[in-house]
Amino acid sequence: MLKTLQWSKGTLKLLDQLKLPHVIKVVSCKTVKETGEAIKKMQVRGAPAIGVAAGYGMAQAALASKAKGADGLRQDLAKAGAYLKATRPTAVNLAWAVDRALEAARANKELKVEALKARVVAEAVAIEQEDVRLCSGMAAHGSALLRDGDQVLTHCNTGALATAGVGTALGCVITAHKQGKKLHVWVDETRPYLQGARLTALELHEAKVPHTLITDSTAATLMAQGRVNVVIVGADRITAQGDVANKIGTYGLAVLAKHHGIPFYVVAPSSTVDLSLVSGKDIPIEERSADEVLFVLGKPIAPKGTKALHLGFDVTPHHLISAIITEKGVARAPFDLTLAELLGR
Amino acid sequence: MLKTLQWSKGTLKLLDQLKLPHVIKVVSCKTVKETGEAIKKMQVRGAPAIGVAAGYGMAQAALASKAKGADGLRQDLAKAGAYLKATRPTAVNLAWAVDRALEAARANKELKVEALKARVVAEAVAIEQEDVRLCSGMAAHGSALLRDGDQVLTHCNTGALATAGVGTALGCVITAHKQGKKLHVWVDETRPYLQGARLTALELHEAKVPHTLITDSTAATLMAQGRVNVVIVGADRITAQGDVANKIGTYGLAVLAKHHGIPFYVVAPSSTVDLSLVSGKDIPIEERSADEVLFVLGKPIAPKGTKALHLGFDVTPHHLISAIITEKGVARAPFDLTLAELLGR
Repeated sequence: MLKTLQWSKGTLKLLDQLKLPHVIKVVSCKTVKETGEAIKKMQVRGAPAIGVAAGYGMAQAALASKAKGADGLRQDLAKAGAYLKATRPTAVNLAWAVDRALEAARANKELKVEALKARVVAEAVAIEQEDVRLCSGMAAHGSALLRDGDQVLTHCNTGALATAGVGTALGCVITAHKQGKKLHVWVDETRPYLQGARLTALELHEAKVPHTLITDSTAATLMAQGRVNVVIVGADRITAQGDVANKIGTYGLAVLAKHHGIPFYVVAPSSTVDLSLVSGKDIPIEERSADEVLFVLGKPIAPKGTKALHLGFDVTPHHLISAIITEKGVARAPFDLTLAELLGR
Repeated sequence: MLKTLQWSKGTLKLLDQLKLPHVIKVVSCKTVKETGEAIKKMQVRGAPAIGVAAGYGMAQAALASKAKGADGLRQDLAKAGAYLKATRPTAVNLAWAVDRALEAARANKELKVEALKARVVAEAVAIEQEDVRLCSGMAAHGSALLRDGDQVLTHCNTGALATAGVGTALGCVITAHKQGKKLHVWVDETRPYLQGARLTALELHEAKVPHTLITDSTAATLMAQGRVNVVIVGADRITAQGDVANKIGTYGLAVLAKHHGIPFYVVAPSSTVDLSLVSGKDIPIEERSADEVLFVLGKPIAPKGTKALHLGFDVTPHHLISAIITEKGVARAPFDLTLAELLGR
């Protein structure tokens, strides 16, 4: 499989995830504007991956800055950061990566402009390298929760294509498979973007993990039939009390898992936890273009003029979640205490 | 709108529902084999409509029979009936219509072959005409349960395209709208066949009922946001204790509606109630081709070789259902008593 992201001499190369699995196309982003557009269009997606991409977007803004002094550079970076943060408002990793770049430019007061630019680039590289380690950490903790023989249900894509490493939720599944546990994965197709059908099925195929694709509304009846032992998903933002914003459809799965007594696990790097928010109600939910519902792979599915609603995410309240797995360990209820403890706050 | 079904001189003309809404095509079925294939391929669909189509299929078998005596005709009809019943096993209306045709040929012992054939054709016409009246009856009872200002969520297609009349669940909605109640309908797209996007949106557009298309997995979060007041769906088979087989996705909606304290209504003609079955576990669930999940409007959505599961229906247990609306009135728990009472058994 080609790499999800690749940074080389100021250019960010992205595997175009809108075209997968049938077309392998690499998008080259040379400027922060191009990188922001790729994030917005979802050519790169997955909360950790867009965090890494945003870091490189800030590096591109730094390299392109014509500022003579550090203050001017910081102004250019602030502008680029505001632009990047607006591309996708729900995932906190994007804002977190932008803030790390801004902090790198702010903290090193002694450095001149060119050295500061190099610091911002180095910060982006560090974010990518960290993400690889974070994924491995999550996979170690999360795979331990999966048992031999498990029938796993997952939603959206949370593997290597969503991160710079082995992934979050899907990274745990693939790691458990590599440990020799016999697993079967039910792959929610994940309308409207079909990340499950297009991306998760691709990753599981390459990792040789047995899997079966289902429509999103099939999950409930499989649970009722006792054919799902565990649900495992990623996250785009987690509040201090453990409420989780993730791909639309996650909340319904959590209610269904609770109803059927099935454990519901959320896997995300600790950078996804936003301690500035308590309740999930305060997470901004991105509303995307209705056309993404009205057209499937370019074909219209409804009569001309039909109105559609496209919420990109939903919020799962903490009481429906069995555990939140981060690279630092596994948090269980009461999440307000355990998350703070894991994060060392 | 063109008619869903039209019988003329031995030919059953069907509006091809696989092509709607973008292509208006009429399929002419001249033999029971062609009618059965149209049912199987879902060119005609919706439990009441396939019941009507099956009635005409039996009429075609009668007209085509070369039998010299009544017994030979009955043998030909039994063969045709077995063929039609196997085309779609879950909806009971199909078997019920076949059995009515068989009974018509069996009961009128005094008639000669040609007269018996005419009786079978007349029975098919009667089934269609009855369906129109049954729909109006359901619409009268069901529309009374909808209130001015309701935000209604529906799944699949249960309107004129699913019946010979105004529909079942959608017939109630459109009738309430015509009564002057201000309603807004959330239309589940209903993967894999997209009956919601293709057919329900079309019917609501023509009836000028305000509506918004959503992906199936968006329903849960709309419920959590208080944007759904009532869920209303059809049924393919209802057992004596009120368990309901309906389009895949219905069961999940019922669990979600219960979780959010939202009434969940099922609308179906009394011919949908199968008193020979007590538990929904005994309803045969049709498993359809995986390709119907793997391809959307002819385009592949997953990597080549991906395995998919396509359950056509699921079963909603009675304890999740607020009311079952038939043409004879409204049944509420305990359904084992109220359904039997409504049906006069």
